[in-house]
This record gives sequence, structure tokens and C-alpha cells, in this order.
Amino acid sequence: MFKISIISIGDEICIGQIVNTNSAWLAARCTELGAEVVAHSTIGDDICVINSEISRLFSHSDLLLLTGGLGPTHDDMTKPALCELFKDYLVLHEPTLKNIVERFRKRGIPMSERNRAQAELPSKCIPLKNTAGTAPGMFFKETFNGYTKNLISLPGVPKEMTTIMENEGLLLIKKLIADSGSEITAYKTLHTTGIAESVLADLIGGAEQFLNGATLAFLPSYYGVRLRIGKKAGSAQLAENDIAEIERIIRERAGKYVIGEGNETLISIVGNQLRYFGKTVSTAESCTGGMLGAAFTEISGSSEFFIGGAVVYSNESKCEFLNVKCETIENYGAVSEQTAIELAIGARNKFKTDFALSITGIAGPSGGTPEKPVGTVYIGIADEMGAEARVYSFSDNRAINRERAVGAALALLLEKLLLISKH
Amino acid sequence: MFKISIISIGDEICIGQIVNTNSAWLAARCTELGAEVVAHSTIGDDICVINSEISRLFSHSDLLLLTGGLGPTHDDMTKPALCELFKDYLVLHEPTLKNIVERFRKRGIPMSERNRAQAELPSKCIPLKNTAGTAPGMFFKETFNGYTKNLISLPGVPKEMTTIMENEGLLLIKKLIADSGSEITAYKTLHTTGIAESVLADLIGGAEQFLNGATLAFLPSYYGVRLRIGKKAGSAQLAENDIAEIERIIRERAGKYVIGEGNETLISIVGNQLRYFGKTVSTAESCTGGMLGAAFTEISGSSEFFIGGAVVYSNESKCEFLNVKCETIENYGAVSEQTAIELAIGARNKFKTDFALSITGIAGPSGGTPEKPVGTVYIGIADEMGAEARVYSFSDNRAINRERAVGAALALLLEKLLLISKH
Repeated sequence: MFKISIISIGDEICIGQIVNTNSAWLAARCTELGAEVVAHSTIGDDICVINSEISRLFSHSDLLLLTGGLGPTHDDMTKPALCELFKDYLVLHEPTLKNIVERFRKRGIPMSERNRAQAELPSKCIPLKNTAGTAPGMFFKETFNGYTKNLISLPGVPKEMTTIMENEGLLLIKKLIADSGSEITAYKTLHTTGIAESVLADLIGGAEQFLNGATLAFLPSYYGVRLRIGKKAGSAQLAENDIAEIERIIRERAGKYVIGEGNETLISIVGNQLRYFGKTVSTAESCTGGMLGAAFTEISGSSEFFIGGAVVYSNESKCEFLNVKCETIENYGAVSEQTAIELAIGARNKFKTDFALSITGIAGPSGGTPEKPVGTVYIGIADEMGAEARVYSFSDNRAINRERAVGAALALLLEKLLLISKH
Repeated sequence: MFKISIISIGDEICIGQIVNTNSAWLAARCTELGAEVVAHSTIGDDICVINSEISRLFSHSDLLLLTGGLGPTHDDMTKPALCELFKDYLVLHEPTLKNIVERFRKRGIPMSERNRAQAELPSKCIPLKNTAGTAPGMFFKETFNGYTKNLISLPGVPKEMTTIMENEGLLLIKKLIADSGSEITAYKTLHTTGIAESVLADLIGGAEQFLNGATLAFLPSYYGVRLRIGKKAGSAQLAENDIAEIERIIRERAGKYVIGEGNETLISIVGNQLRYFGKTVSTAESCTGGMLGAAFTEISGSSEFFIGGAVVYSNESKCEFLNVKCETIENYGAVSEQTAIELAIGARNKFKTDFALSITGIAGPSGGTPEKPVGTVYIGIADEMGAEARVYSFSDNRAINRERAVGAALALLLEKLLLISKH
């Protein structure tokens, strides 16, 4: 196996000020290329720590991917660290300087000496052009304890990192894997819904018998359990054949719970079903403030099925925009089955769609009552047959309640769509 | 310093199938308690790897936080790993079993033997009750190479992990830090906008002189640069005094660019300004599909200033809901300065708010033209003085374009709000 480790450098990640999305992105891309990602490590901006971590992970890995520490200020330590480790020195890289000068010229702001210094690169590196920012990526091939090891250093700004990787980095890694002649690992994920992790495990049964060297992981999410099959082999073709056989057995045993596969998400699965049946949808949102509409429009081409939505945060806007009756809110409250139903009907009529989903709830942390504590969310759905609403009780955390409400609304729509396919 | 390392266990994180939000959450909480988070490490579900990583990080840390690998299926390895490492064995923990039985009873689904096994815990651990799921947290105090080390193992499901930590875990860590008599590190972050990282660094100048042992980090984000001051000291009070002096100098030199501090975010800063001036806002969104409304409603209490919004994804809904003229869309296109202006005016009139923001753009990957390539986004703002729109050109990535559009809209509103405060 071609082994890759990822090192994220930066105090801001170490102390939890930002969530590290870079390492997941890089790991997913490297896994798609068939490599084995053995570890992710996050460390602070400290030359000694950076270099001891590179040395440690070099002994487990064929390639290290570094992100961060390439900015223009005094707390950016990756270049000095690499120079020390590889006994190298900085030289001015003219094409990089040109790129930086050009970027500042276009933006019409003065360029600082600090930015000029970003064009000074270790002499041993092959620069990878950054078309989205000032700091280029750097590729090193070095001998370490007698073995040839590869290292790619990338900026920490996600957009710059992904741009460099998509333009040059991924091709480079693909070539490194091919040249190494290593085994590769292929994966396939099946998405299930409506069944608990433990019951699903029992249903599939003696996985150890039929896995035959492959791995099977159970990954719970808020809408169901994903099953990830992994297989190591000499070629992608061989691995995929073995995976296909395991998939066949799983589908035989638990097929009716399988709703999608691969990189599909709940929203892409719902979107595909809507497209397949030629149905449209609109939304009426209160406590989620637009998150459900945002979820539908995550997918390119969602205009085929998503028409629009109303974010009706105030009671007045619920009545005025979506024709919820004032008495309904007075008698039952804005967070109630009745209001959820009228919101869904209102959105369906206004946007002239086949389905409409509504969300009204107490996201928290304030606003809860003994009868309707924080986390109480009503989700309504309207279609040509009428409308209904269900009540959910999530958590005491605002962000989680909002996210789960979106998930529950999508799951409810999926349920209705799967009913169509059964008719 | 009381040193903490975080180990995230799970193939799904290692291969990049999910983003690791747990380690950022834990790191932020531990940092707030004054501890030093020295490393985060992500590794796969493998007993040998788990144990060698625990051993390695024990030598750098007073406390290890583990997440993941406590589920009911065969790929969950944390308990066997800990039993092996600590030469321990599993015993049934009755209160945990009771909690699991009760959870299944409430949900009305049958409990599997696999879930019963989740109540078997290493005999040496102190269980930390999980009120949000089945797997409890586990606290160990063990002698390792002659030193006493602490370890807390937590489930990987974010909600379960945070629930256990908020109920018991954080208090436990606070006590461990206090009992150790360690130095602590305090942090303070200042948020700036409207100035480039390198120019800001020059303006603040010889940081090395006035920092006096403290650290100053420059953290760029899409709306501006955050400055994070850090100081180690024998007590929180001493550290905070030193930080206050550094903050005074920074504000003296770059105060006019400082728009907020601490855990504030662009949305909380905008929200505070809206509250302060008693102004309301509404939204009209096309390509962001509701993300801007979702951003406003992230904050509890946002109903004070956010009234509602329209997600007008189709051209018809733009005209019908927000009175955009058909001719405007025909003549200039849905993605145009004119449409953005009419959308903002339409939302302001409909929702009767002081401000309205509109977003219309080509998020991509399809829909671009030579004149308006993917990434072209118009953002409109309407207030009592009239309306205007600005054009932005972001990237070729749909998700990034949508996120940056939301950021740019909030920054535009902030700009208008800061103008009020100058009058």
C-alpha cells in the first residue's frame, strides 16, 4: 500500500479555533486514488514540533501532506522548518513573485515586503502554482533513513489548498502511487435508512465469514447507517470485483433498507427521487431560518425540483406570506402541529409545487416551556393528498436541533417519495 | 502547563468520509479551561495503532481525550484496546445497562445483544453517564512510565460526546488542571475587517518588542483578519493583565479596523450592531437558497432583528414574491445588478424591515457565460436611503461561492451599520 499521512500545522487548529476541513478533504481525495491514509496529525506553529512530527510520520508513510504555516507573518513556520530539516535555503522563485505582484496589482492594493518573501522558496522544492492566493505549494522528494520519501506542503486556506491540489497535486499523487507499484484499497459505501445499527449488523450476520479479507464498517448518521466496504488488492479492478460480491450479499440480506450508494447524501438521494418522479418541492421555515432551502440548493441543477421557499421567522410573516390563520397561531402556538400543517399548505399553494415541507420548532436555548421544551420541532408535509405534521424532540442544543430538523424533513419527504415508487 | 492531546479513532475520519468536528470542539473547551492542547491525532480502528498512539502521546501529555470506537459493531476497537493497554477486563456496569434498556424501551425498538455489550466496561474506569446515547464515557487514571496519566474515552457521535463533556467531563478536566498546580494559558482574539494581513502586521509593527513573552497570531478569514493574543502565566488573572496591555497597544495602532472580539463571529457582530441601533433586516436569496437567513438565525434571539426572507430560486418566484419586474430579468438577466437591487427593494417592502439584503449569482459548476462566469455574484442592499448592488467574483467551487456570498452580504450590511455609528 502507498501510505499517506496528513499534518495540519497551526495553533488555531490545535486550540480548536477553527475546524480542520483540509485533512478530511485531502484524505477523501487520496482514498479515491487508492492510497491508504494512515494518520492525520495536528500540531502548533513550532519548528521543533513540526520537524519531529515530519520525521516520525516519514517512517510510517510514503508521502506526507502538510497544510498551513505558509502565510506572510512571523507565526508562519513551515518554510523555516523544512529548510532546517532538509538542510536547504530559500531562493527567490521568479514565477511566484510575478504571480504575487499580479494579484496585488489586480486587487489594487499595495504589496508588502512580507508578501514578497512568500516568493522565496526552499531551493530543493518543485513549486506548485497557487492560482487562488499568494503562497505556492511545494513538492519535495528526499532521502530519509535510506528511503525516498515524498512531501507536499500546501497553504492552510482551504480554497488555496484545494485549488493547488486540483490543478497539479492530485495528478502528482496519482503518479507517485503508480510509480510505487503498490497495492491499492477500493471502497464502496451503501446508505441505509429505517434500521438501527445493531439490528442491521444482525441482519447482515456473520460478516466475518463472507468478508474474505475485506472490511465492513458501520457508520451511523442522523438519517441512517452507512455501510462501507473496503478491499485491498493489486489493482482497482480486482478490488472492485471482490467488493461487488460483498455488496451482492449485503443487498440480498438488507436490500430493502438500502437507499443509495457512494458519495450520495440524503439530499442527493432525495433530489434524485424528485427528478425521477418529476416532482417539485418548496419550503416554509421558521426555526431553521433557510437551512432546508440551503440544503436543497447545495446540489447543482436543483432548480429542476426546488422552486423556492419562505423564511417566516416572525408570526406576522407566517400569516402574511403563507396564509397561516392568526387564530391557529393564537390557539395552538407558532410551534404546533396545526401551524406546521398550514405552513406546508401555504408554501405548496404559493410556490405551486407538488410537495411542500415546513419546519417550526423551539431551537433553543431559550423559548422552551414544560409542554414544549427546547428541541420540540414540528415538521409538516403537504402533497396532492393533503397535509400532515410530525413532532420530534431533539436536543437542548440550538445548532443540533436545526440540523436534525433539516435531516428529519428530508427523511420525511424521502418516505413519501419511496411510497410513490411502491405504488 | 497542563498538556492535553486528542486522539480521534475511526477509519471514517482517517479516510476523510467525515470531517472531524469533535477535536476542534474539545480543543476549544480545553483551551478555555487554560490547558495547552499539544496535538490532535486521527487514526484508524486498529488495536495496535490505538495503543501505540496512546503510549506515544502519554509521554507528551497529562491527559488524553479519545473519541470514537465505542459503538456496538465489530469495527469498534477502543474498549479492547484499552483493556489490553491497561491489562484490564470488561465487567457489566448495571447503571449503564439500565440506561441502555430504558433508551430502547422509550424508542420502542428491540434491543440487541450488541447493545447489551455496550454496558460492559473496563473494570478500572470511572463511567461518565451518556444521557444522549448508549455508550458511556470512561475516565482512567493510570501509572505510565512512573507518571500518573489521565485518559477520557468518549463516543464519536458529536452530540453524545458533547453531552457527556458538558455534564461531567469538563468539570473533571477543570479539577485535574487545578490539582496539577500547572501554569495556564489565556487567549484573547480581536476581529478586524478591511485590512490585508500583511498591511495589518506592518501597522501593528515590532510585535516582538511589546509581546513580552506573549504570542500574537494572525488568522485570516473571508471577512478579515483575526488577531489572537496568547499568554502563559501562573494564574488566569496574571495572564489576563498581560493580554490587556497588549490589546491596548494593538487597539492604539489598528483600533479603527477592530470590529469585535472573543468568540464573536461576523454574524454575531452584525447582530449586535442591528440590536444596538434597533434595526431590522430581511433577505432575498437565489443561489444561496436560504443560507443567509440560516446565518442570521444561528444566533438565539435573532427574532429581535431578523424578520424573514424569501428564497426565490426560480425566475417566476422572483417576480411573484418580490415584485421583480419581468422586463428586468429579461433585459439584464436574473444574475444582474438590476435584479439584485429589485430583489432587495422587494424584500424590504414585503417584510417591512429597515434593511434588506439580496443575493443572486452563478454558484456553478454550470450556468456560467463568458460575461458572467461561474462565481459571479451580485449582492444588493436596500435601506431607507435607497438601494445598491455590488458584483463579486469568487471561485469555481459551488460551496465556496455560496459561503462567500453570505459572508460578503453580512460584510456589506456591517459596512452600512458602521456608517450609522459614524454619523
